[in-house]
Amino acid sequence: MADSLNCDLKSLSPLQLFERVTEQGEKVRALKAGKAPKDEIDAAVRMLLSLKLSYKTTTGQDYQAGLPPKDLGLINNGTAKEEDEDLVDPWNVQTSNAKGVDYDKLIVRFGSSKIDTDLINRIERAIGQKPHHFLRRGIFFSHRDMDQVLDAYENKKPFYLYTGRGPSSQAMHVGHLIPFLFTKWLQEVFDVPLVIQLTDDEKYLWKDMTIEKAYEYARENAKDIIACGFDINKTFIFSDLDYLGTSAGFYKNIVKVQKHVTFNQVKGIFGFTDSDCIGKISFPAIQAAPSFSSSFPQIFNGKENIQCLIPCAIDQDPYFRMTRDVAPRIGQPKPALLHSVFFPALQGAQTKMSASDPNSSIFLTDTPKQIKTKINKHAFSGGRDTIEEHRKYGGNCDVDVSFMYLTFFLEDDDRLEQLKQAYTSGELLTGELKKVLIETMQPLVAAHQERRKQVTDEIVKQFMTPRKLAFEF
Amino acid sequence: MADSLNCDLKSLSPLQLFERVTEQGEKVRALKAGKAPKDEIDAAVRMLLSLKLSYKTTTGQDYQAGLPPKDLGLINNGTAKEEDEDLVDPWNVQTSNAKGVDYDKLIVRFGSSKIDTDLINRIERAIGQKPHHFLRRGIFFSHRDMDQVLDAYENKKPFYLYTGRGPSSQAMHVGHLIPFLFTKWLQEVFDVPLVIQLTDDEKYLWKDMTIEKAYEYARENAKDIIACGFDINKTFIFSDLDYLGTSAGFYKNIVKVQKHVTFNQVKGIFGFTDSDCIGKISFPAIQAAPSFSSSFPQIFNGKENIQCLIPCAIDQDPYFRMTRDVAPRIGQPKPALLHSVFFPALQGAQTKMSASDPNSSIFLTDTPKQIKTKINKHAFSGGRDTIEEHRKYGGNCDVDVSFMYLTFFLEDDDRLEQLKQAYTSGELLTGELKKVLIETMQPLVAAHQERRKQVTDEIVKQFMTPRKLAFEF
Repeated sequence: MADSLNCDLKSLSPLQLFERVTEQGEKVRALKAGKAPKDEIDAAVRMLLSLKLSYKTTTGQDYQAGLPPKDLGLINNGTAKEEDEDLVDPWNVQTSNAKGVDYDKLIVRFGSSKIDTDLINRIERAIGQKPHHFLRRGIFFSHRDMDQVLDAYENKKPFYLYTGRGPSSQAMHVGHLIPFLFTKWLQEVFDVPLVIQLTDDEKYLWKDMTIEKAYEYARENAKDIIACGFDINKTFIFSDLDYLGTSAGFYKNIVKVQKHVTFNQVKGIFGFTDSDCIGKISFPAIQAAPSFSSSFPQIFNGKENIQCLIPCAIDQDPYFRMTRDVAPRIGQPKPALLHSVFFPALQGAQTKMSASDPNSSIFLTDTPKQIKTKINKHAFSGGRDTIEEHRKYGGNCDVDVSFMYLTFFLEDDDRLEQLKQAYTSGELLTGELKKVLIETMQPLVAAHQERRKQVTDEIVKQFMTPRKLAFEF
Repeated sequence: MADSLNCDLKSLSPLQLFERVTEQGEKVRALKAGKAPKDEIDAAVRMLLSLKLSYKTTTGQDYQAGLPPKDLGLINNGTAKEEDEDLVDPWNVQTSNAKGVDYDKLIVRFGSSKIDTDLINRIERAIGQKPHHFLRRGIFFSHRDMDQVLDAYENKKPFYLYTGRGPSSQAMHVGHLIPFLFTKWLQEVFDVPLVIQLTDDEKYLWKDMTIEKAYEYARENAKDIIACGFDINKTFIFSDLDYLGTSAGFYKNIVKVQKHVTFNQVKGIFGFTDSDCIGKISFPAIQAAPSFSSSFPQIFNGKENIQCLIPCAIDQDPYFRMTRDVAPRIGQPKPALLHSVFFPALQGAQTKMSASDPNSSIFLTDTPKQIKTKINKHAFSGGRDTIEEHRKYGGNCDVDVSFMYLTFFLEDDDRLEQLKQAYTSGELLTGELKKVLIETMQPLVAAHQERRKQVTDEIVKQFMTPRKLAFEF
């Protein structure tokens, strides 16, 4: 189950797809030559057609037997982007592939490691329970040094979690919850402290926004984050604009990072230019510093070398590649990472979500009716043009956004697998799949809204007050 | 008196010197032609020779009647430096002129205004007392918007003083006291709040130094600053490393400045390159931010628009040119400035002092014996090679470091003028002039050491604690 969904989610490279189509073609020919039963041949043909569709969507060209796509070669670690390579950095995620970014290629390009079955099994052994479906389904698909975190955990050595959000607007959508839902699960199973950075300073620097507005968004977003159910005794949420002025350790780590990174380096990593403001140029150090426990003397009792684990979307990795490069030079341990895929826009997986387009996703403020309308109207379908064709050839889960959303939010593995088979075989129609998604999302969003209502300004203030947490260091 | 010393201190341009030599030559010829008394003619000849020596020291060439030096033309505002132009930025002060930097030219290049007799008189009227000898003698020689500060003062509108120091070592020399002595006087005559920034973060970024060392130097330097006699109820001293982590307003102003200055701009102003660390690149905003009263909400009760006046050495002006450029764009008043000349090294006025060379100045830790030895051994003399020549032609106060030091530290105007005349006429020998300087500096440094002993760690802590001062806003 985990494996098959892994493959659905993490889109294959053009070459891999080419090979799959070729294989499937051979299978069809073999079945026909061996005079297999008609339904078996039909199923194989449907799969072949679906694969050919995927190939066309990915490469923009029809599949031609014996004519593989151009090899894209190995890609360097920098920001340089080959013609049909995905663009992934903290401010842009662009791909021409309907199935979304090519994550296997990103692992090679970023130099991270794939979260494989061995690692997932090791996590299961360590925590003594079934890993989160985000892990089982490859939604968190890549890591750096997760083995070391598990080594430490197994040796009863402490670690802490760090994640964050750039509060670019008041409105958060369901995709924004992914890192927080996963981090909450990690915190529960490992029982460790968690710090959540709200980079209101970053949003002020990048957007046409006042400092006051950025800070207001930070506090509003904190409410949605808290509504995920974080434990107030184990979690510290901070706005940069606030915390920098209240912490004895944070600025010291920032300036240490800033001393060890040149403009040339941030130019290479983030693509900054001479026309960028000096705030942007030095900002990466501010996102780096919470990776070091001495940024939180009130939590870690001034201890310097507590291991940090950062769950985040893969587009944030450039910040932490830089951080890991600097860490040993300032005598600090490298933070470990768990990377997630991007949450697709309703319109298709080619782009990351945009908080400024209300129709690009399901927002946490949407009513049941808005959710229904959005999904019915905007969710890109992998189904066929007519009911007859759909029944005959089946839908393509690889590009169907409703199915993608279900892999994120439908926790029942068996049900998801049934839906997949029924949709792929043509038994389940697009409208029916959308109905399942609507019925999944409506109660989920409503429950979030209910919990958010309980989050008072006083509770936000408590979460955002620098203080000792329920751990001894 | 003030005028003649003004001319001594602020070195003339080659062209102005050429004109002075020509004038003096004509005067000598006129005296001789008019058969003036011998002593009168001799004095004029001595002056002519002294001027010719100055001309040669400045231009590197003998004076030739009718052959003026090449016009250096108007100089732009950037860091570009013409061949024989002085290099002045926050990290370098270089001149080939034995009389020191050409300050008149610097005023043109930096676009500041000269502190002229009118302004000095206006200050005298405003405060109802004789202006400080640093003003009367042109040691503070340039300003920006001092008129506006006086306008505000006369209209009973508040302003505050801001100065600072980069704590690059434990050892401070007498030259480091100049801005503090003058600021103390300003604070007393205007009765206004004062903030003093210790840029320990800057020193950490620029030098091969740990954060802990930089912070230690900041606290040690604070003792020498406090020993100047600042009023603890009216003065807040802060280390950046400390205060950034305790102020609600400071970081907000830093990030505002950082949003409005590009790398291109700091490259132009400070000469940064792509190989510089991002800490250096963004640091100018940290020196800029104390120019805005909202960086000190505890002092100014959160008020945003209190006028700031910055007394500093002219090499710090680039920071504040940048600050004044940004201020209106972030809705803040431009800080006003008072610029001082550089304190010359004992070896001559060609360079700024170096805290790392113990013989380059008189240090605040020197014993009376060390002071005597240093002055006798290292103070560059404007006297003649032999006693006979000296008696005949006199010494040159323009290049004599002992005389320069006396203009800084000998408060008695009449005595200074007598010394000048006696030295210029040859009546006073170099050794005698040095003796006056030794007798001036020994009690001054001893008294400083005595006051510094009284500055306990507790007093330093009080000065450096963010708090309300003895003013209502």
